[in-house]
Amino acid sequence: MNLHPIQLFDAESSTFTYILCAPGEKQAVIIDPVDHNFQRDVDHLERLGLTLAYVLETHAHADHVTSAGRLRQHTGALAAVPSGCGIPPAELQLVDGDVIRFGAAEEIRVVHTPGHTAGSMCYLWRGNVFTGDTLLINGCGRTDFQSGSSEALYDSVTNILFKLPDDTLVWPAHDYKGQSVSTIGWERQHNARLANRSRADFVELMANLKLPPPRMIDIAVPANRNLGLPHSV
Amino acid sequence: MNLHPIQLFDAESSTFTYILCAPGEKQAVIIDPVDHNFQRDVDHLERLGLTLAYVLETHAHADHVTSAGRLRQHTGALAAVPSGCGIPPAELQLVDGDVIRFGAAEEIRVVHTPGHTAGSMCYLWRGNVFTGDTLLINGCGRTDFQSGSSEALYDSVTNILFKLPDDTLVWPAHDYKGQSVSTIGWERQHNARLANRSRADFVELMANLKLPPPRMIDIAVPANRNLGLPHSV
Repeated sequence: MNLHPIQLFDAESSTFTYILCAPGEKQAVIIDPVDHNFQRDVDHLERLGLTLAYVLETHAHADHVTSAGRLRQHTGALAAVPSGCGIPPAELQLVDGDVIRFGAAEEIRVVHTPGHTAGSMCYLWRGNVFTGDTLLINGCGRTDFQSGSSEALYDSVTNILFKLPDDTLVWPAHDYKGQSVSTIGWERQHNARLANRSRADFVELMANLKLPPPRMIDIAVPANRNLGLPHSV
Repeated sequence: MNLHPIQLFDAESSTFTYILCAPGEKQAVIIDPVDHNFQRDVDHLERLGLTLAYVLETHAHADHVTSAGRLRQHTGALAAVPSGCGIPPAELQLVDGDVIRFGAAEEIRVVHTPGHTAGSMCYLWRGNVFTGDTLLINGCGRTDFQSGSSEALYDSVTNILFKLPDDTLVWPAHDYKGQSVSTIGWERQHNARLANRSRADFVELMANLKLPPPRMIDIAVPANRNLGLPHSV
């Protein structure tokens, strides 16, 4: 059945971190934790009486640094990352179709959705999809740096995500307008960038966005490829 | 069984609004909506395919204006408010022990928890307690204005809320540190203001906080007593 994750917000980078746990279960998974929220997230796990089985990343982020490495050290969880994102220290290098198991019977299905970055993954769990920067609420992630591809993003969203059941809840990695959640059905019909638009039109729209370079990319990407831990010298 | 609500955040007043809905159900309830988030909240209901049965207020807020009146007009929902908060236009004037029913079999239990204001209520639903400004994560609401009473708040928290099951999830009306949720068990053992503290010590602590007056009290309280709608002239 459909369950909601616990959604935590980082006001600095407008990033959502998610804690997945099932009723009565003590094992949890965290998705896309942010470095300076390490203690906040550890405190949530403690308050909820949860142990951490896995730390998941949807991709190597360009706008914030992960706390995956520190969480792994602190909790004993394993780091699980997209195999195509160049994050060698992680224990699990995920490929499309993998299933991550935790608790008594929880399953997270791994879906490769290239476009925001070539390696980007989405994660399916109990009627929810955690879409990273692939699909945002009424928008999508940018595709103009770090192996991004508008063509690939269009294909990932329209051929994979939009074919999930309509009532699948969409939990993105970011929101900039105080929004929390959407559904696949609504996004397929109404998403301002992707609904009822051809691939060529979408590619042109994305090419004309002319966004400034991500503020933290030169720091964040190398750090995230090491799970946010200092590089050894 | 324990379900999580959808939690929405207002960055301006650090207020949480909650949407309660059960899997497969189309009826929902919203708690403590904020005026300038009216469209955001309506959009969430639309995306999730939900109709609104009730708009609930935990108290007459002093730091933001509710959108309860507009939501009621727009959706046909009924407004349900604590009877002791002086909000005459609401259809339901709740008293301790009331049960609000929605969907096929959803029940919200109403608990009178005076202290932040004399009328303040908490709401229980499927292993969650929506605590308003009575109990915050590792803190509590202030008690120095608008019928507040430190003695009453101490009694409400220690005699009522702390006697709920340990794993009851605590969803407050505000958080100022990026936190989302706690549990009764953790708060009873660790809450910085209320755990392991005598009533007299708590009253002294609250008396010495010397907080500035709430910024919006002169506007917000009269507006909220009219469900956020303009007063007729």
